Amino acid sequence: MVTTRFAADDDGDLDALYQDVAEADLQPLWLLKGLLPEQPSAMRPHVWRAKTLRHLAERAGDLVGIDRGGDRRVLGLAHPDLGGLPFATRTLWGAVQYLGPGELAPAHRHSPSAIRFVLEGSGVFTLVNGDPVRMEPGDLVLTPSYAWHEHHNPGNEPMIWFDGLDLPLIGNLDAVFFENGPDELTPYDEVPVSRSEQLHGTAGLRPLYVDSSLTQQPAEHRHSPLMTYRWVDTDRALDTMLAATGGRAAALRYVDPLTGRDMMPTLRGEMHRLLPGHRTPTTRTVGSGIWVVHRGTGASVINGVRYEWGAGDILVAPSWAAVDHEATDRADLFLLSDGPVIEAVGLARTETLAHPQTVTDTVSA
Amino acid sequence: MVTTRFAADDDGDLDALYQDVAEADLQPLWLLKGLLPEQPSAMRPHVWRAKTLRHLAERAGDLVGIDRGGDRRVLGLAHPDLGGLPFATRTLWGAVQYLGPGELAPAHRHSPSAIRFVLEGSGVFTLVNGDPVRMEPGDLVLTPSYAWHEHHNPGNEPMIWFDGLDLPLIGNLDAVFFENGPDELTPYDEVPVSRSEQLHGTAGLRPLYVDSSLTQQPAEHRHSPLMTYRWVDTDRALDTMLAATGGRAAALRYVDPLTGRDMMPTLRGEMHRLLPGHRTPTTRTVGSGIWVVHRGTGASVINGVRYEWGAGDILVAPSWAAVDHEATDRADLFLLSDGPVIEAVGLARTETLAHPQTVTDTVSA
Amino acid sequence: MVTTRFAADDDGDLDALYQDVAEADLQPLWLLKGLLPEQPSAMRPHVWRAKTLRHLAERAGDLVGIDRGGDRRVLGLAHPDLGGLPFATRTLWGAVQYLGPGELAPAHRHSPSAIRFVLEGSGVFTLVNGDPVRMEPGDLVLTPSYAWHEHHNPGNEPMIWFDGLDLPLIGNLDAVFFENGPDELTPYDEVPVSRSEQLHGTAGLRPLYVDSSLTQQPAEHRHSPLMTYRWVDTDRALDTMLAATGGRAAALRYVDPLTGRDMMPTLRGEMHRLLPGHRTPTTRTVGSGIWVVHRGTGASVINGVRYEWGAGDILVAPSWAAVDHEATDRADLFLLSDGPVIEAVGLARTETLAHPQTVTDTVSA
Amino acid sequence: MVTTRFAADDDGDLDALYQDVAEADLQPLWLLKGLLPEQPSAMRPHVWRAKTLRHLAERAGDLVGIDRGGDRRVLGLAHPDLGGLPFATRTLWGAVQYLGPGELAPAHRHSPSAIRFVLEGSGVFTLVNGDPVRMEPGDLVLTPSYAWHEHHNPGNEPMIWFDGLDLPLIGNLDAVFFENGPDELTPYDEVPVSRSEQLHGTAGLRPLYVDSSLTQQPAEHRHSPLMTYRWVDTDRALDTMLAATGGRAAALRYVDPLTGRDMMPTLRGEMHRLLPGHRTPTTRTVGSGIWVVHRGTGASVINGVRYEWGAGDILVAPSWAAVDHEATDRADLFLLSDGPVIEAVGLARTETLAHPQTVTDTVSA
Repeated sequence: MVTTRFAADDDGDLDALYQDVAEADLQPLWLLKGLLPEQPSAMRPHVWRAKTLRHLAERAGDLVGIDRGGDRRVLGLAHPDLGGLPFATRTLWGAVQYLGPGELAPAHRHSPSAIRFVLEGSGVFTLVNGDPVRMEPGDLVLTPSYAWHEHHNPGNEPMIWFDGLDLPLIGNLDAVFFENGPDELTPYDEVPVSRSEQLHGTAGLRPLYVDSSLTQQPAEHRHSPLMTYRWVDTDRALDTMLAATGGRAAALRYVDPLTGRDMMPTLRGEMHRLLPGHRTPTTRTVGSGIWVVHRGTGASVINGVRYEWGAGDILVAPSWAAVDHEATDRADLFLLSDGPVIEAVGLARTETLAHPQTVTDTVSA
Repeated sequence: MVTTRFAADDDGDLDALYQDVAEADLQPLWLLKGLLPEQPSAMRPHVWRAKTLRHLAERAGDLVGIDRGGDRRVLGLAHPDLGGLPFATRTLWGAVQYLGPGELAPAHRHSPSAIRFVLEGSGVFTLVNGDPVRMEPGDLVLTPSYAWHEHHNPGNEPMIWFDGLDLPLIGNLDAVFFENGPDELTPYDEVPVSRSEQLHGTAGLRPLYVDSSLTQQPAEHRHSPLMTYRWVDTDRALDTMLAATGGRAAALRYVDPLTGRDMMPTLRGEMHRLLPGHRTPTTRTVGSGIWVVHRGTGASVINGVRYEWGAGDILVAPSWAAVDHEATDRADLFLLSDGPVIEAVGLARTETLAHPQTVTDTVSA
Repeated sequence: MVTTRFAADDDGDLDALYQDVAEADLQPLWLLKGLLPEQPSAMRPHVWRAKTLRHLAERAGDLVGIDRGGDRRVLGLAHPDLGGLPFATRTLWGAVQYLGPGELAPAHRHSPSAIRFVLEGSGVFTLVNGDPVRMEPGDLVLTPSYAWHEHHNPGNEPMIWFDGLDLPLIGNLDAVFFENGPDELTPYDEVPVSRSEQLHGTAGLRPLYVDSSLTQQPAEHRHSPLMTYRWVDTDRALDTMLAATGGRAAALRYVDPLTGRDMMPTLRGEMHRLLPGHRTPTTRTVGSGIWVVHRGTGASVINGVRYEWGAGDILVAPSWAAVDHEATDRADLFLLSDGPVIEAVGLARTETLAHPQTVTDTVSA
Repeated sequence: MVTTRFAADDDGDLDALYQDVAEADLQPLWLLKGLLPEQPSAMRPHVWRAKTLRHLAERAGDLVGIDRGGDRRVLGLAHPDLGGLPFATRTLWGAVQYLGPGELAPAHRHSPSAIRFVLEGSGVFTLVNGDPVRMEPGDLVLTPSYAWHEHHNPGNEPMIWFDGLDLPLIGNLDAVFFENGPDELTPYDEVPVSRSEQLHGTAGLRPLYVDSSLTQQPAEHRHSPLMTYRWVDTDRALDTMLAATGGRAAALRYVDPLTGRDMMPTLRGEMHRLLPGHRTPTTRTVGSGIWVVHRGTGASVINGVRYEWGAGDILVAPSWAAVDHEATDRADLFLLSDGPVIEAVGLARTETLAHPQTVTDTVSA
């Protein structure tokens, strides 16, 4: 048997010890509960509804301006299980951002990496290190770590997009740096195609030089050179995959075309297309994810609870939660996750359950 | 100018908006302060003294047994700037562990990775996946992610070692798994050299096969196959480096001999030797570190405060803190850091300051 | 001084030694000249003319059928400096292949890797592991190591294409394997887009799964999953690069979209576009290359000799030769080289000369 | 059926075509036999005997001096199946080198990489980029690509070592560069341990800095930083592997301690130990190898022929030959192969035969 000696009965001595331990900025491991749980995690799934998000974003658009300091009109998803922290999961920031007609959000840059996934509106330009990227619904736009970025809405309609950042992770790593750009915004041309797409937008063709200047990425290549992945491409690629195979569900990952690895070292993006009537296998994965419904309707079962959803709804699936999906209308789900980080620390683990989950509760759309 | 529209003056509308936003589990980014600081981090350095650590560990040894549930007699470093969390930094767990003569700590395993660095005592065996590793002062012992480990003290003297884990990081990634082993401990031979050393302990010689069995590591090679790095080797290697160059300071990194990369994907270990009278350049590095004084005396200046130290003292240097060291007696400093994680997320950054720091305060040993 | 002892004068003894050495299947290094030259290589550049190649290919088309055994109607470039070997350089096989209307070339596979670059004709299908790839002028088609491949010309016009293989290299490595497929050809659909393009033809979008089947490449990923790079894409990408920068010359490398590395481990493919009147810098590179003129006219200076060229001409540039190009009409040059092998063995080296080459001779088109 | 059209009967036309084809520096593929064999290779195994090698090396020592131009007293293995080329296989140069008491071989460097494996003698120093490496029997010494190297025999006895180079491969890649050093040799200290061993000779300890100078290898890390692998270490490691497992055969690979990969990008080195009475499984491997018997006696069956051997004998095993070994006395076999190149080009392939080879012939020692 394991026990080697019995603890002293004399509580007075123990109490004195514990008091001295605390005063020395120490804590006895044997009194700490929950530090090493058998499995992740105590967090529950959570859903935010498109209608609420749009309604509140619009009201904020009416009442709150965008100026230096705030910089952005953003409503952050604050998961109720995170004790008031403004985070969607322990590693991911999720939010909706609203930019009204004619509005501008000034340049800044930061060490956390970000993506934008367009929910509604058209014709906004995000300048990434000065390169104007036109934004349309379903487009994914990157603003990698330390890249200057600013948003311009030159049109007549507002735009709402989903913001995803690795901010909680980078905050916990004590690695956040932030810098404001100039107050004046950058002039730009309203080109349909960004320079990053011109250089890196064709599969398998890698720019080598122009005149005598090499156009290759530097050795320290940390993120995709492509600043946007177009919905028109994503849509066609998924169609093709399903048509070519007769499949009922398919997915793509957004990757760095120069390495095939995730678009940025901390954030994984995927688009999953489900045809009606196909229920995906139930899987658990280490790491957390935010699902954004781009189009269609359906339901996801997460740890036994069925969450019905429609376009614009946002669901959080915690680490190691059992998850499956089923569409009622053809549906496209955008997934943002911390997968690359989980892989980098050597803890990637995915399990497919042998049987569909039993539904114990339903949260209606 | 950047500002696009002014915020409404009508506080009633705004208040209502903020209330609705909160009820919808959202938070307005523009009200969140400190989320994106210009630099890391608000944490201060901190020091724990050898004398206190040993005294409290011994008292715990007298008063608290080791049994299933507690499993280990460990006092965790609880940095006073972390609001009561039992962590040395936001990513690192540090602690002292005490194992009395004849004591045993039963087998368990977990997804967080750990190292042990022996401070005092001799002749303890840690079994790592059943491979007995004898522990002597200055030895570094690994218990990688998911490796079963148990501790045996067959001798007549207690042992105190420093425990370092990536537990806060893995906790924040919601990736902690834990499993108890059998209550009965594993029988073992008191061999001087572990099997891992027999196979991987000679530089540049990689085992290929025995009979028809390949001895190579699997493709998913995640951590060093060497479970211990001996003080006798480390000591000689540092001596040689200094003797060969006439240098006054030198350092080694503990690496996976099959890849040259850090010993484990989340933890970096280094040994720094300082001869008296040499002050190291002042550097800032993204990521946090725990310095354990193995031998000698000296002082480190961290963000302008001079911390004097001696053998067994433990200092925490926060992310991006300015740090330099100077020995009064020849000193050996063991460093545990989260460097590999910072590199994996693409945020590694080190800066050497042009001038020595001005000392604004001194914390005596 | 270096010499340590003088050689014996007694030629009789030496002669006897050399005879015994030879009989023992040995050779004295000190008698071998040219084994370790100061620089590569004694090979000269060489040019083959489009007119000759087409004329001879057509005559072969009239006179020689395609049947099992021969398998292909191919005229191999036999560099006159290679002593009768049928190779373009010491590492590269180059050839023109002719497939008449209605002709078929049966399936085989081999360990050497191959590319096809279409010179003339339209509508041929190459089946790569059963996947039909339609071929048009300027298209690059891969038949990687061990991939089954067969050619079908269902149309009314002949096709001529350039064949490039790593055959001399793989032969020298004693690593050639060859296997015939069935005598009967494979039925196929005349689809405009191959399955490989459907799955991997969009930059940055990586197929993840269809239904429950992962579509990811296996861990041992050795070559591009994309079997063709379309001229229409290459042409547009080069246009864009030049238009975006105002440049006069630009180049693209054909890469594996899942890794960004060369399309196959032994063969590098590039397309270089030159606008009239721009002379490229003169460079030397370790490794040999075959330049195929896709369109336009101009001249290349190689080791001081000016070679004029037009569409369909093929030039060999030996290792370490000084090379520059100039177009008279806008020109597109396809380059096939052994660059990845030179890099793999650690000997990549490129030098840009400070001054343009002096032309000592001209070879007219 | 495959055949698409019949060849013309009119030999006159065909003859004219073939003549024109030849004059155009072309060759018809369909007339080339053996270009794509079903398997490698037509080469036979070959053996050189220790007694002959030593005897001829000694005679050369008596008759031939070492001076600039020849530079080295080396007898190259010239495989009888290579048509007079002075190479052991199509990719590997093998040789014995003889350096008499007091002799010196001056500095040069070249792009081909080399190893030395000491057969007889003691106390020679090879300077690798000025770092003196003492040589003893069984030691492996590297002189990587472009490293300056010179040999000094300060003692009273001659030394004979085996030289292995990638020269045929690098020659075929047209990538040989060569440079003579100064005529005067470099002064050095007769230290027992080279600087490379001091810095990189302890498993798992990677030098980080001395004073403010980083000692890490540059990013373009192409070969092992360790210039010698000591027999004393190799011997002990093999003993340990066998003792720990009760095995009858074991092998080690010499690797770069900073990467775990082969010691140099083109050459693989291994030491295989066989206890008497154990016959290894029969394997075929793509790529060629030279086996040097370090100690012991036994026999290898290669493609059905049994070659008996003793210390100092050298055998060549061609690519894809079936090979097994059996020791009569405990034996140590050093293997030099082109394995890393075969892997780099994506053609690595090893097959273990289900049954031992039938011996059809024996070549006695």
